[in-house]
Amino acid sequence: MQSPRRTGILFVLSAPSGAGKSTLCQRLAKDRDAGLNPFIYSVSCTTRPPRQGEVDGVDYHFLSHAEFERLIEEGEFLEYAKVHGNYYGTRRSNILASLNQGVDVLLDIDTQGAAKIRANPDPEIRRALVDIFLMPPSLQELERRLLQRGTETPEQVAVRLANAEEEMAQWVHYRYTIPATSIEGVYNDFMAIMRAERLNSRRLHFPNHTP
Amino acid sequence: MQSPRRTGILFVLSAPSGAGKSTLCQRLAKDRDAGLNPFIYSVSCTTRPPRQGEVDGVDYHFLSHAEFERLIEEGEFLEYAKVHGNYYGTRRSNILASLNQGVDVLLDIDTQGAAKIRANPDPEIRRALVDIFLMPPSLQELERRLLQRGTETPEQVAVRLANAEEEMAQWVHYRYTIPATSIEGVYNDFMAIMRAERLNSRRLHFPNHTP
Repeated sequence: MQSPRRTGILFVLSAPSGAGKSTLCQRLAKDRDAGLNPFIYSVSCTTRPPRQGEVDGVDYHFLSHAEFERLIEEGEFLEYAKVHGNYYGTRRSNILASLNQGVDVLLDIDTQGAAKIRANPDPEIRRALVDIFLMPPSLQELERRLLQRGTETPEQVAVRLANAEEEMAQWVHYRYTIPATSIEGVYNDFMAIMRAERLNSRRLHFPNHTP
Repeated sequence: MQSPRRTGILFVLSAPSGAGKSTLCQRLAKDRDAGLNPFIYSVSCTTRPPRQGEVDGVDYHFLSHAEFERLIEEGEFLEYAKVHGNYYGTRRSNILASLNQGVDVLLDIDTQGAAKIRANPDPEIRRALVDIFLMPPSLQELERRLLQRGTETPEQVAVRLANAEEEMAQWVHYRYTIPATSIEGVYNDFMAIMRAERLNSRRLHFPNHTP
């Protein structure tokens, strides 16, 4: 049996709070570390100074403001944003280097960042992109949880619910939407998507059977 | 948690001989009968007379020549072919009725039939279609099996190999290509594709979160 070669996949994962994204990502990392599911997490660039224990190239690529802005001008970021005066962004060359080696990349990003990546015209990025949305429980359930937690004022709860509602409407733009039913269900859904997309003909190459 | 509603998926499966399609289909039918994986097999129409034990509507929809040709003229077949003087075809209305009820349909068909379905301009069919190719072992391996079986002359073996080579080149037109490594591997790949495609946002509808 000939084995197909393939290019890497850029899995982009977004989820409003309450959808179980952290639990999913921990479990995926555990599988990966056990050699069961090969992929790498995308490491973002930032101009924020490293915190205690953070390692350059592992937690973030730490860049100076000048360097970051030079890279912005060069169109080097697939997406970037300024938060509290610091830049955060995803470097195109980092992602492409992995994809060209056939390595899958998982990028955990908000709906705005995902929208920028989706709009990228680079055919290599477009071919690699698989965007996945975790749909959290209903707004009613989210409200119930926030009120039960009791750490926010009714006004803060209202703001969070309005944000969640806006984010939840973004699901239509993602190729896949996983309803956040149970931890097990979300994990199995995500694994099925990874396995299926690794069989997507667009990215495969059978050396002896390509016309 | 709100559950999404969705329209049905038309899974189209093609494989040259030797890829393990029959084994896969038997296992899928077993899962389905155990209530683990809901879908229906598409039942073809034919003008060939029923054989002993064949049931109309189960094995085939048996039609007269005149009726079949009237339906051809009405554009009612997603694909059809004439083999040894008899027509065989897939009725559009049968498929659409299932899809509109959210029922997934599995259609086991050769590469020529799949090409016709792929070319269908109906947006409902295009949205529903997920075509999957089982890539059999190498030609060398296929040749080895045929020679070992010893039921065909060297000339017949050569014809079969030429056909297989032509069919194998069709994989590029399918959304997914499963390399026929092991029975277990093919089954798990196919199940992952079914699970993933059931999460494809194009076919989902979250009543409370559609802009």
